[in-house]
Amino acid sequence: MTAAQAQQASDGRRRVLEAAVMCFARAGFHGTSMQEICGEAKMSPGALYRYFPSKDAIIEAIAEEERKRNAQILARLDVDENVLDAFFETGFTFLREVTRTGQAALCAEVMTEAQRNPRIREIFERNRTEAHGKLADALARAQARGEIDATLDIEAVTKTLMALGDGLIMRMPFEPDGALDQLEPQLRFLIGRMLMPGTTGQRS
Amino acid sequence: MTAAQAQQASDGRRRVLEAAVMCFARAGFHGTSMQEICGEAKMSPGALYRYFPSKDAIIEAIAEEERKRNAQILARLDVDENVLDAFFETGFTFLREVTRTGQAALCAEVMTEAQRNPRIREIFERNRTEAHGKLADALARAQARGEIDATLDIEAVTKTLMALGDGLIMRMPFEPDGALDQLEPQLRFLIGRMLMPGTTGQRS
Repeated sequence: MTAAQAQQASDGRRRVLEAAVMCFARAGFHGTSMQEICGEAKMSPGALYRYFPSKDAIIEAIAEEERKRNAQILARLDVDENVLDAFFETGFTFLREVTRTGQAALCAEVMTEAQRNPRIREIFERNRTEAHGKLADALARAQARGEIDATLDIEAVTKTLMALGDGLIMRMPFEPDGALDQLEPQLRFLIGRMLMPGTTGQRS
Repeated sequence: MTAAQAQQASDGRRRVLEAAVMCFARAGFHGTSMQEICGEAKMSPGALYRYFPSKDAIIEAIAEEERKRNAQILARLDVDENVLDAFFETGFTFLREVTRTGQAALCAEVMTEAQRNPRIREIFERNRTEAHGKLADALARAQARGEIDATLDIEAVTKTLMALGDGLIMRMPFEPDGALDQLEPQLRFLIGRMLMPGTTGQRS
């Protein structure tokens, strides 16, 4: 394969994946046919099947793209700066990215499918475990440096922040444009209160 | 209608709704036929159609049941006691209830459907607005009594806690039994830090 052919193949794959995300967001995994993805991608079935043998293969490729993009965003947590700043930059970059690319609209669909399709569940849980691990590591380093409160249980904080992120993503398709920008300073303030060293809060 | 007949109709409706929740959780709204709901409810199509003319009517009835149950749980917030205690009691009762009844498994499905079906969206958003309002009122009263920090923006806190609740519900179908019990004391601690009067946290 020449460099030009490899580029063409990569562009073709990308066109299919973008078209598929549009179709899935509109009609769901089950409500979308390969024919409709061809239509959206303006590609013949013969060409499309050269890239992906099945709808499941497209879904897997979308999940894999998402994993790579998440890994890039999460890599910012490794930078040895103030963890709260890094966390907010990472978190809000991620929320804006999933909203922009239409993944937020697909998120509920993926969670639904993951409950029934073992392959999707496996990819979904692997992506999630990776993100959870990266976040927990960053929080533990920050705790060791005294940036976040010494009494906090890192696993519990990680689970809480991941659940908050999930909930925010899920709401995106129902919120007006700019809702996230409006909430951002308040979220920083609230999460800061939750995590920073200090005397607020009670042990239950 | 005699009292006995009314009771029989109510029992029949309940049987259909419980069967439908089972079917929807297993195969989704679109993947479930009225025939399958009949099978699960052990009821003839003739009997089932007497209660509900369509699958959409069943989905609406499930959403309405959920609204009533949520209203009952949220009513506990009106009790004039410590708002954090009332909030946790309400929140965890709710999380346990949606897990127990299989609604947690349906939650992603409802969010998916709400993005495409205007009638489901309307019911879903009405339920949500009601819960948001109840929680915001309780938090505002608590702030007036000095139980939660005076600097907090009640709307932002409500949105954050609702998103956290959504995220926790969404995870339930993927977590082992007891995961919520394990997280509960830590969640109380973290939310306490977030809300209680004190000096932790920074204005951004």
